[in-house]
Amino acid sequence: MKTRAAVARAKAQPLSIETVDLQGPRAGEVLVEIKATGICHTDEFTLSGADPEGIFPSILGHEGAGVVVDIGPGVTSLKKGDHVIPLYTPECRQCEYCLSRKTNLCVAIRSTQGQGLMPDGSSRFSCDGEPIYHYMGTSTFSNFTVLPEIALAKIREDAPFEKVCYIGCGVTTGIGAVINTAKVEPGAKVVVFGLGGIGLNVVQGARLAGAEMIVGVDLNPGRVPMAEKFGMTHYVNPAEVEGDLVPYLVSLTKGGADYTFECIGNVKVMRQALECAHRGWGKSIIIGVAPAGAEISTRPFQLVTGRQWLGTAFGGARGRTDVPRIVDWYMDGKINIDDLITHVLPFEQINEGFDLMKRGESIRTVVTY
Amino acid sequence: MKTRAAVARAKAQPLSIETVDLQGPRAGEVLVEIKATGICHTDEFTLSGADPEGIFPSILGHEGAGVVVDIGPGVTSLKKGDHVIPLYTPECRQCEYCLSRKTNLCVAIRSTQGQGLMPDGSSRFSCDGEPIYHYMGTSTFSNFTVLPEIALAKIREDAPFEKVCYIGCGVTTGIGAVINTAKVEPGAKVVVFGLGGIGLNVVQGARLAGAEMIVGVDLNPGRVPMAEKFGMTHYVNPAEVEGDLVPYLVSLTKGGADYTFECIGNVKVMRQALECAHRGWGKSIIIGVAPAGAEISTRPFQLVTGRQWLGTAFGGARGRTDVPRIVDWYMDGKINIDDLITHVLPFEQINEGFDLMKRGESIRTVVTY
Repeated sequence: MKTRAAVARAKAQPLSIETVDLQGPRAGEVLVEIKATGICHTDEFTLSGADPEGIFPSILGHEGAGVVVDIGPGVTSLKKGDHVIPLYTPECRQCEYCLSRKTNLCVAIRSTQGQGLMPDGSSRFSCDGEPIYHYMGTSTFSNFTVLPEIALAKIREDAPFEKVCYIGCGVTTGIGAVINTAKVEPGAKVVVFGLGGIGLNVVQGARLAGAEMIVGVDLNPGRVPMAEKFGMTHYVNPAEVEGDLVPYLVSLTKGGADYTFECIGNVKVMRQALECAHRGWGKSIIIGVAPAGAEISTRPFQLVTGRQWLGTAFGGARGRTDVPRIVDWYMDGKINIDDLITHVLPFEQINEGFDLMKRGESIRTVVTY
Repeated sequence: MKTRAAVARAKAQPLSIETVDLQGPRAGEVLVEIKATGICHTDEFTLSGADPEGIFPSILGHEGAGVVVDIGPGVTSLKKGDHVIPLYTPECRQCEYCLSRKTNLCVAIRSTQGQGLMPDGSSRFSCDGEPIYHYMGTSTFSNFTVLPEIALAKIREDAPFEKVCYIGCGVTTGIGAVINTAKVEPGAKVVVFGLGGIGLNVVQGARLAGAEMIVGVDLNPGRVPMAEKFGMTHYVNPAEVEGDLVPYLVSLTKGGADYTFECIGNVKVMRQALECAHRGWGKSIIIGVAPAGAEISTRPFQLVTGRQWLGTAFGGARGRTDVPRIVDWYMDGKINIDDLITHVLPFEQINEGFDLMKRGESIRTVVTY
């Protein structure tokens, strides 16, 4: 079949809106009509050429929502008409990782996914007979896309695609980091570095978990009204702090934060986030993606005196199990997604969405098909 | 009163065996006759002058066992004749830290202890009217010493002083890191870097916790027979590994270790210990004390993909609660201390004990009064 898609032909070039060929689902695969997709910094990271593992030509996009159109042989958990969110972190429920009960990092299709291929080692996308590669196993910048069954979360049918697509990455990453990775408890003190999309989701995750003090740290005071709406109780602008930021935050939190979150991808901030965590038990969670080759560092004394340095991917969420619950939370009004989606564009204007993100004008842009 | 003591008069000088003045216990304090004390690398770290917080003249020693001789006003949990182990990490059971249930780092007397003073801001030791400072709140290199009540663990009376004194630091640090900090579970795979006294206690702690694979990493193959006796199942000599150590250990453990322990104090080894931990859930625990100013580093990707970087002090043990239990384990034959105490010397030969340690000839030397 044919599908419209935004093809990443080469690094640092705008996406090319094309009609490409798409093969139907093979065994264990599902054909999905994508209805809406968010544009994430990770897509831009790859498109820019900064991602050393980026592959071209490929179809980017990993934050979508849509409807099952067809299923391949052996698919049992989904049927035509089901509403789904694609998962770049699948959940096979059978591999060593899924069975460990300690991580969400399913490895069932890891090697082929990293190569831009389906689990059988081939691509479903092509143009003039030349293969176009998948991306993060999802390729939601195509109106129709094929995914493994284990990489789709089935969600309720009354959830609006152009909102819940954001649960496919940013919402789950931020809220999940609070709930699954940090395990924030009621009464906790939390510091969030970076009040972009991920940071705001960390803020509302901390509120959901009952945190008492939620400190937001960001150089841009324009973020404050939104962050307060999401639950931030204290704002700190590093540019306005005299002296070092770490002792300032330790003092503000009366000894250090119980949990800190780095949502920027800056290794210097990651160190600050660790060091303003509370002696004895403070946990610092790295969410942001650092530039290739960048390293974090600190004195080991910081850890010996009880701080813990952690990280999280996809918020520690098991996609098929946890994503439908987060959709429920949105539908029940427990979390706010609407305010985070600042721009909705038709698919043809997808490159404009990238520009809005690069200029820092959007929190999240969603494109609809 | 008078007491014999080994006084650290100046850095990098042998200890001076002297008779010094000791004031009796004030409110909340206890006079203890030390019967035996171990000599630890931390004492040497301070004596050498490498410890930026070292104070002279002082009476070092923090790994002792003895008998209560007198108590000051208000002491309720101890009486004359009680057998005790001094605690450089006290347990007041009332401060924010003790009540947190998340750490053992009681802060009740932290500031004065760091200054070499008793909680009221004065020293009990003096010589010719000049104060001699306490050390780590314990000063077990004195035949008699005064400690706060909250810095003494009451132990059973049939436990031999010259053995259980080692529980005052090394044994608890190693076994506690496994049980309290890492929380190793049956079936786990463990890698221990450094097979000295701490490392061997980590090894036997891992065996106690039911670990299935206990890999010891040390440049000295002379450590192997003892380590195997303590529970090591696999030995790796980094000097004999071709190529990088980390992928070798990841392969040996079939994907990485569930728990790794750095028992050396080398920041490069701390990085290796983190990076050979299992993707998704491996925890790496820093026990060793690094040189002043040294820093650990890694790529944040190591944490984002699920490894956790932790540290531990006094094995995460709450001294008054946990130390008596470890004494019981020793008396019940569950842990081996006898083989770790390779040398027992009379108090007057304490400097010889330091020499044995510096030359790497002892695992632990104990001096008896």
